[in-house]
Amino acid sequence: MSQYTITVIKNEQPKPKPASDQLMFGKYFTDHMFIQDYSEERGWHNPRIIPYEPISLDPAAMIFHYGQTVFEGLKAYKTKEGQIQLFRPDKNMERLNRSNDRMCIPAIDEEFAIDAIKHLVHIDHEWVPDTPGTSLYIRPFIISTEPYLGVSPSSTYQFIVILSPVGSYYKEGINPVKIAVENDYVRAVKGGTGEAKTAGNYASSLKAQVIGEQEGYAQVLWLDGVEKKYIEEVGSMNVFFKINGEVITPMLNGSILNGVTRNSVIELLNYWNIPVVERRITMQELFDSYQKGELEEAFGSGTAAVISPIGELNWDDQKMIINQGKTGEISRKLYDTLTGIQYGTEEDPFNWIIKVK
Amino acid sequence: MSQYTITVIKNEQPKPKPASDQLMFGKYFTDHMFIQDYSEERGWHNPRIIPYEPISLDPAAMIFHYGQTVFEGLKAYKTKEGQIQLFRPDKNMERLNRSNDRMCIPAIDEEFAIDAIKHLVHIDHEWVPDTPGTSLYIRPFIISTEPYLGVSPSSTYQFIVILSPVGSYYKEGINPVKIAVENDYVRAVKGGTGEAKTAGNYASSLKAQVIGEQEGYAQVLWLDGVEKKYIEEVGSMNVFFKINGEVITPMLNGSILNGVTRNSVIELLNYWNIPVVERRITMQELFDSYQKGELEEAFGSGTAAVISPIGELNWDDQKMIINQGKTGEISRKLYDTLTGIQYGTEEDPFNWIIKVK
Repeated sequence: MSQYTITVIKNEQPKPKPASDQLMFGKYFTDHMFIQDYSEERGWHNPRIIPYEPISLDPAAMIFHYGQTVFEGLKAYKTKEGQIQLFRPDKNMERLNRSNDRMCIPAIDEEFAIDAIKHLVHIDHEWVPDTPGTSLYIRPFIISTEPYLGVSPSSTYQFIVILSPVGSYYKEGINPVKIAVENDYVRAVKGGTGEAKTAGNYASSLKAQVIGEQEGYAQVLWLDGVEKKYIEEVGSMNVFFKINGEVITPMLNGSILNGVTRNSVIELLNYWNIPVVERRITMQELFDSYQKGELEEAFGSGTAAVISPIGELNWDDQKMIINQGKTGEISRKLYDTLTGIQYGTEEDPFNWIIKVK
Repeated sequence: MSQYTITVIKNEQPKPKPASDQLMFGKYFTDHMFIQDYSEERGWHNPRIIPYEPISLDPAAMIFHYGQTVFEGLKAYKTKEGQIQLFRPDKNMERLNRSNDRMCIPAIDEEFAIDAIKHLVHIDHEWVPDTPGTSLYIRPFIISTEPYLGVSPSSTYQFIVILSPVGSYYKEGINPVKIAVENDYVRAVKGGTGEAKTAGNYASSLKAQVIGEQEGYAQVLWLDGVEKKYIEEVGSMNVFFKINGEVITPMLNGSILNGVTRNSVIELLNYWNIPVVERRITMQELFDSYQKGELEEAFGSGTAAVISPIGELNWDDQKMIINQGKTGEISRKLYDTLTGIQYGTEEDPFNWIIKVK
């Protein structure tokens, strides 16, 4: 049980809401935001829901210099009955605290944070879009705010949650994408911050992504930073391969993000008695299985796109066309089931859904 | 020549200045700051010097989420004649642009940036302290400001410069420190962002530093992220070892910061005909040379401490006491010469000094 009480200041000048068919990812924001402060003396305190407004920080605030920060991403979905519901927010809050630990940020109260998110989503419930594939993206994040240029953990923080109505990631449901294997740049390395959801991992990924896009690829496939042999992630998603009837995903090793959708995919495959294994897999093994005709499907998993089939994978100019460039059967089934659970049209045997209000 | 004109709005309510003997590193800030905006349409525009004040950003601004940011650190020194001068600001601005390139941030005009820094320092010249060892720390930084949650380079930025009067890094001049070799955590890896001066590198270093401090060490010595064998940096400084009469520093490899003080140390040693070499060096080689009695000195180099002798180095509980824990001859000579040039008491044969006004 939480000992916190959230102060609410309603926004008296609500913004016009964008039309459902004009929604993009992360461009529009709702009328309210949640903020809570941290100081060494008081711990986390003063939780409040206030009108969405600029954050004002000293230019020496540590977030601007040393990037001590963590974030999360999850969504609220509206069912056809009008119920608003969250998908596994407990997993996101658990991970937020694991990220906090790696980044030397004080832990939050996970249960309270879920309550705060539910409260905020409820206040902005009119912003949850209801056309197919749309949802309300929820972005909790913590920033270091102490105005001090020494390299050390901040003594003050803000925990903030903002909300953004978002469209379907792919306009026509799911659609296979072209991916390039990245050989020069590295996203993360063992002993680094790859497992934490922290800004620096994303900043370091930009250059490879920009080059990849110029060459016509939607995302890059990251290899491990040590040997550049083992497959880690694709873009900002986890990655799965179906080889000879078995689904394989890189095992968590400290540099791979422990994705909530990744975990849900593994649980669903187990539930369906489809063989799934978490292990190390090299690019060479993947390519060999492709040449033998055993690579049946490949897909990324993440909150934004849910399941993103990989139709083409380019490794050092060796082009692999997977499943004839089409969405595979397992990818489709996972997408349909996960979105079905999220939108309330499928049974939820795992109790993944948390209702708002 | 620059085509920019800097608008100046003077601070009509200057703050009281801290006493020289109460200065710390990066805790106090002056009365003014420099800001310039970037947009895709206008490029870098609207350079202005305004009263030091909070930065106000949309909570979705990319700096808070994906850490696309770079910074620099340099100092202004006051000579005993009252002249204020900078040390190699051209090197810092060159590096800022190399960092920009890695982080997908548009390049700044280096010459104009130096003019802007000189202008800002001149306006706040009364803040440059003049007791021995004190200086005015200059922190240029660029933050991504677009309110958008997609992982991609921002379309807008702010280039900001703030100033902080700082005390002597070590109260009694230079003082050997205890360092622990870090075996678990990694600061940066080849293909990552180690060579860029960007927030994520510092965020990822915090955990190891906190653990090191709890164990009584001032800093940690970073090994390479791939083999955990090669020496990279110490804390947020570059590192040098004098072995059998020769000074060795790890060669730049993409994951080591290209330090301005590092470069100045190499140039000074060459000028003095002291053998200096940039090459890969393993922890094992260092330890072997220590056991043979050939490790004569070790020191870090950086803008904050200039030269920081290493008196003790702990590698997997193998304790190395270097030069009996005392400041070595070369460390001392480098410190005295570098600070002498910076404060105008030594000749400047390299034209490193740029006078303000």
